[in-house]
This record gives sequence, C-alpha cells and structure tokens, in this order.
Amino acid sequence: MQPLRWGILSTAGIAVKNWKAIRLSGNSVVRAVASRSLEGSRRFIAAQQADAPFAFDDEPEALGSYAELIAHPEVDAVYIPLPTALRKDWVIRAAEAGKHVLCEKPCAVSVAELDEMLDACRRNRVQFMDGVMFMHNERLARVRELLDDPARIGPLRRINSAFSFLGKGDFRSDNIRARAELEPLGCLGDLGWYCIRYALWVMRWQLPLKVAGRILTEAGSRDGGPGSPLEFSGELFFEGGVSCGFYCSFLANGQQWITVSGEQAALRIADFVNTNDACEAAWEIGHERIPKDGSGMELGSETKPDSQESRMFRSFAELVRGGQVDESWPEIARKTQLVVDACLASARSGNREVVPGG
Amino acid sequence: MQPLRWGILSTAGIAVKNWKAIRLSGNSVVRAVASRSLEGSRRFIAAQQADAPFAFDDEPEALGSYAELIAHPEVDAVYIPLPTALRKDWVIRAAEAGKHVLCEKPCAVSVAELDEMLDACRRNRVQFMDGVMFMHNERLARVRELLDDPARIGPLRRINSAFSFLGKGDFRSDNIRARAELEPLGCLGDLGWYCIRYALWVMRWQLPLKVAGRILTEAGSRDGGPGSPLEFSGELFFEGGVSCGFYCSFLANGQQWITVSGEQAALRIADFVNTNDACEAAWEIGHERIPKDGSGMELGSETKPDSQESRMFRSFAELVRGGQVDESWPEIARKTQLVVDACLASARSGNREVVPGG
Repeated sequence: MQPLRWGILSTAGIAVKNWKAIRLSGNSVVRAVASRSLEGSRRFIAAQQADAPFAFDDEPEALGSYAELIAHPEVDAVYIPLPTALRKDWVIRAAEAGKHVLCEKPCAVSVAELDEMLDACRRNRVQFMDGVMFMHNERLARVRELLDDPARIGPLRRINSAFSFLGKGDFRSDNIRARAELEPLGCLGDLGWYCIRYALWVMRWQLPLKVAGRILTEAGSRDGGPGSPLEFSGELFFEGGVSCGFYCSFLANGQQWITVSGEQAALRIADFVNTNDACEAAWEIGHERIPKDGSGMELGSETKPDSQESRMFRSFAELVRGGQVDESWPEIARKTQLVVDACLASARSGNREVVPGG
Repeated sequence: MQPLRWGILSTAGIAVKNWKAIRLSGNSVVRAVASRSLEGSRRFIAAQQADAPFAFDDEPEALGSYAELIAHPEVDAVYIPLPTALRKDWVIRAAEAGKHVLCEKPCAVSVAELDEMLDACRRNRVQFMDGVMFMHNERLARVRELLDDPARIGPLRRINSAFSFLGKGDFRSDNIRARAELEPLGCLGDLGWYCIRYALWVMRWQLPLKVAGRILTEAGSRDGGPGSPLEFSGELFFEGGVSCGFYCSFLANGQQWITVSGEQAALRIADFVNTNDACEAAWEIGHERIPKDGSGMELGSETKPDSQESRMFRSFAELVRGGQVDESWPEIARKTQLVVDACLASARSGNREVVPGG
C-alpha cells in the first residue's frame, strides 16, 4: 500500500520532531516542505536530512510558498504548525484542495474560527485532527482500564494538573508565544490545551457545566489591546461534583504532572504530555508504582517508532486509508477549544463562572 | 528539671496520638485528663495506659469536668482538642488560670474570636501555639535550605497542594467535622489550614495580597444556615506574582501532597502533613529523589520519640521552661486564620477576591 504523502506547512521548531515521527510511522512519508521562501524550506530539509541516522525515503521537495504546497498533486495530507492566528486560512485552503489536515494546537483563536475550519473539512470530506500526541500513547488505554476498575481509584472527585516550562531570555517580549497578535491564547492555548484535553478525556468528553479562569501574568501588548497570557490558572466544574484545577505557565520550571483523585486512590502521572522522558521511569496509583516499560513505554527523549508522535501520524494515515472521515477527532478538538475559550472569557471578565459554549 | 505537666481537655480522637507524643517528648507528662464525665476520662485513661508498651510515668488523674482541669494546681499547660466552636471559652479560661495553651487547629471560627483568645494569653503571659505538627518536623529546615539555594528551585512561581481523606459512611450528616454549629470552617479549617500554613511558611509569613475560594461541596445544615464545607478549592496571590492553589476535601482519597515550583525546578513532597507514612520513602526536587531517613525521618505510622508530634510537645515544653513567651507562635496562627477567613469570605460572596484582614 502506498504511504500517506505529507506536506509540512511551515518550518516551525515543532516540525522537526514531527518530521521524524512521520518518517518513523512506517506508513507515511514527507513529500514536500513549504516555507515562505524556497531558501528557507531547502535549508530546513537539508538540516533534517543531515540529522537522519539513515536514509528513510526520497528527499522531500522544497517549496517556496504555502500555496504551492496546498496545490501539490502528490500531497495527501498537510501538517500545519503555523502560529495560531494564521491557521484558519490555511486549514480552510487545504481542505478545499482536498488535503487532510493535522493541525497543531491550539487549533484556532476561538471556537467561531475553528467552526469555519471544521465546516470546510466536513464539506470537503477530509480528516481533521489536532496535534495532541498523548491521545495516541499506549499508556492511555491502560489508564482508562485503571480508571474504570472499581477496586482502584473509585468514583472521581478531583483532577489537578500543571504544565509549564521556563521561557528563556527575553521570552516575555520576543517569543512568538508571547505575541498577542499571533498567539492570543498564550500559555492557555499552548499548554492549558493539554491540561483541559486530558481532563475531558478522563471525563469521557463530558463538557464541564461551568469553568473559571484567571490570568496570573500577562505579556505586554504592542497595540494596547489585551496581552498574551503567560501564566494561567483555571478550574472546571463537571456534573456530579467532579472538579479540575490546572496551572499552565511559561514562567515556571518544566513540569507536566496530573493527579486524578477518586474516593479510594489517586493516580499520578509525572509526565502526562511528553512521555519520552528519561527521568521518569514510572507512574503511580496511590503508592503503587507502575513501570512505564510494562505498558509499552519507551524511555529516552528521542523520537522512536513507538513514540506517541510516530503513533499519531501512523493512526492518522490509517484513518485516511480507511476512506471514512472519523468525526470524533474534530469533535474533541472543538470541545477542547470550547473549554479553552470559556476559561479565557472568565479570566477576561473578572473570573466569573462561564458555561462553555453557553 | 521537672517535666512540663499537661492537662488534656477532652477525650477527642486526636488526643490519643498526642497523649503518646507527650509521653515520648522526654520533657513532659500527662498530669490529668478531663472529660465531661468522670467515667469518660477514666475510660480514656485506662485505654491509653493499656495501649502503652511500657510504663511512662504515673497514671494521670481522671477529672469529671473541664473546669476542674483548668483549676488544677499541678497542671502547667493544657492541650485543647475540643470542637472549634467550643475552643474560645476554654482557651480564655485556661489563660486566665495561668495555663499555657496548645490549641488544635483551626484555632477559632474567626479571627475576631482568635484575637480574644490571643489577648487573654498575652495578658496572662502564657504561651499559645496551634497544633500544626509539621512545623516541628526536622525536614522543614532541610526544605528551607533547598528553597534558599539559588542553584536549586530558583525564584518561586507557584505552590500547589492537596490534603484530603475520605469520610466514612454517613460522614456528611453525622460526623462532627460536617456539623456547621461545631465546625463552621469544615474541611477548610481542618485540612486547608495545613495547605495555607505551609504556603505561608514557604513565603516566610508574607500574607497574600488577596485570595479567592470556592466551596465545591457543602454539608446540609440543620438550622437553614450555611452548611459546613466538605470540599474546598482556594487560591492565594502573593506579591511578586507567586501564587498558590490548594484543594482540601473530606470526599476524596487520602492525599497530602505539595509542589513548590520555581523557575528552575519543583520540589514535591508526597506527605507534607503527616510524615509518618511508611509508604513514602522519599521526596523529590525535579527528578532527584531525596531519601527521608537522610533527613532524620522515621518511617512507619507509629508515633516515636522523633516524630513531629513528640517534637511539638518537646519544643513547647522548652519554650515554657525558657520563661519568655514566644510571640511568633500566636502570630503565625493568627496569619493562618486570617487567610482561612478570607478564603471562606470569598467563597461565601461569589468567589470574589478578598484581601486577608482587609
């Protein structure tokens, strides 16, 4: 069977990891890379090829504009790691050209824009998926078993999570993540997206009845409008009394932990987002340590054939090969965006409680 | 030197642990125990004596009323584990009788009542201290060193903590902790007190500029007034952008973790309240595990001479022997109460931000 042929739209830093994941997926190839200049895409391709431990496939084609990639007849699917504010147009153009779309998170600056993107995908019968790698981690099935086992965690009460990293140097003023015109959701979109997504997954895609959010630190803005959130805390309130508190930040050390507490025990995962972390050899329920390698985890920070990134592209290619659009992926991306939007709306209106989508 | 002679005022469950701690302190003895009936205090004493692995000292005197204990000429200090709503009167009576006071937490139902209690102690020159055992844990000095080491955690950004246990059976209706007329602060006073206290300790007793709180679950009340909080989440906002989120609950499994996150690393302690926990052999900074026994910790759930409870009574006795009242203990109890009160005030007024003491 022919591999799924990918086009990478932009040479953002995260594309490096995912280029490798596409190569390691076993059922996909990178067919073309587009930058805003031919020189840029050539340089990117040369760097990735030089870094490859062995030749995976033919060298991808370098393209000098995003439009050429969208129009390319031998590109089946596009991976779009553009800044959030630029995604809508290119997702819609890709869908209209019949390309399947794997879109980085946060998918859009608002659910209104995401709906336009998803409508275009639906009309053109192309698959849409957001780039939340942990959804493809083998560990997830094992965590679900444990959550469902009545003898383990018991009825849920509380989820707590934190996802942060320390932005280097003059991050607050210069990094793209801190620029409100490109990333108006700031750390809430970049990091909180994962905290919210995991909580929704735990709750089997039940939307919270209401949410509350607070911007703890905000970047200065250039145009006098609101700045990009650099540090955010939020709380989600689900039916039946389950609640979730999360913290995300560009201003604290690298951490990515989640605790799912039930009446009987708490499950704690120290690396819920990026599991390829050599420093963490286990996760825990109460005081029981569960070795990662026992659940198919690879240690080490290198992307491997079984890494969640490789699995993501492999799953995507399998979906496309199946010939039927899987509507669950756009749906859970939309739910995540709804909750993100509601958290920001709360923060922007004095921390009042907001009903997602209400 | 003569040991400090304690009177235990009420035969509450927690008095069992602290009776043992007094005995193990090495510089204190239990001189008398008072219940509301002579029969009750006799039964309590007999049970504790039977449980003792060896004879520590002479059998304490059983008293049939709290007033007799307060008046007892051979009692130097009283330990008061009465329900919160009953504490004020007995603390004041004890102080007026010249007895030093170790008072369980939450100290009072409000800072206004606590101020009356502390005024009485000050007027009568007796020592006041609240029963926060972890303040006397050897680990605290080591944690302070680590927090102060610029190469470790770095400038602080966020504290997160959770302290919970699952109330058994018909806890919501029957347990004293859920009865608003006796424990109007509910889990916020019983458990949140520790979360707040640890945060204040980390912040070197700086009060938060503002706080916000939310009652997640409330007990039904008998008189139509507000019920006792059974599940609470709060957030503290300190000068310089440091914040703290905490969760406390009678409705979730037993957990007692805290994470202190700086720019460079996070310190995580899985058992910050009751360190005598055989299941946890270490705490961590980032990925570095720090063995407990290396910092003087005893494992096992049994109270030992070096347990924090024994150390608390030993320290108290040393203070009293020193002959000078240490004003820092009432002061930090008062700050804790101020923040607890502000969190509850926020929760009772639509989660608005409240300035402690403001």
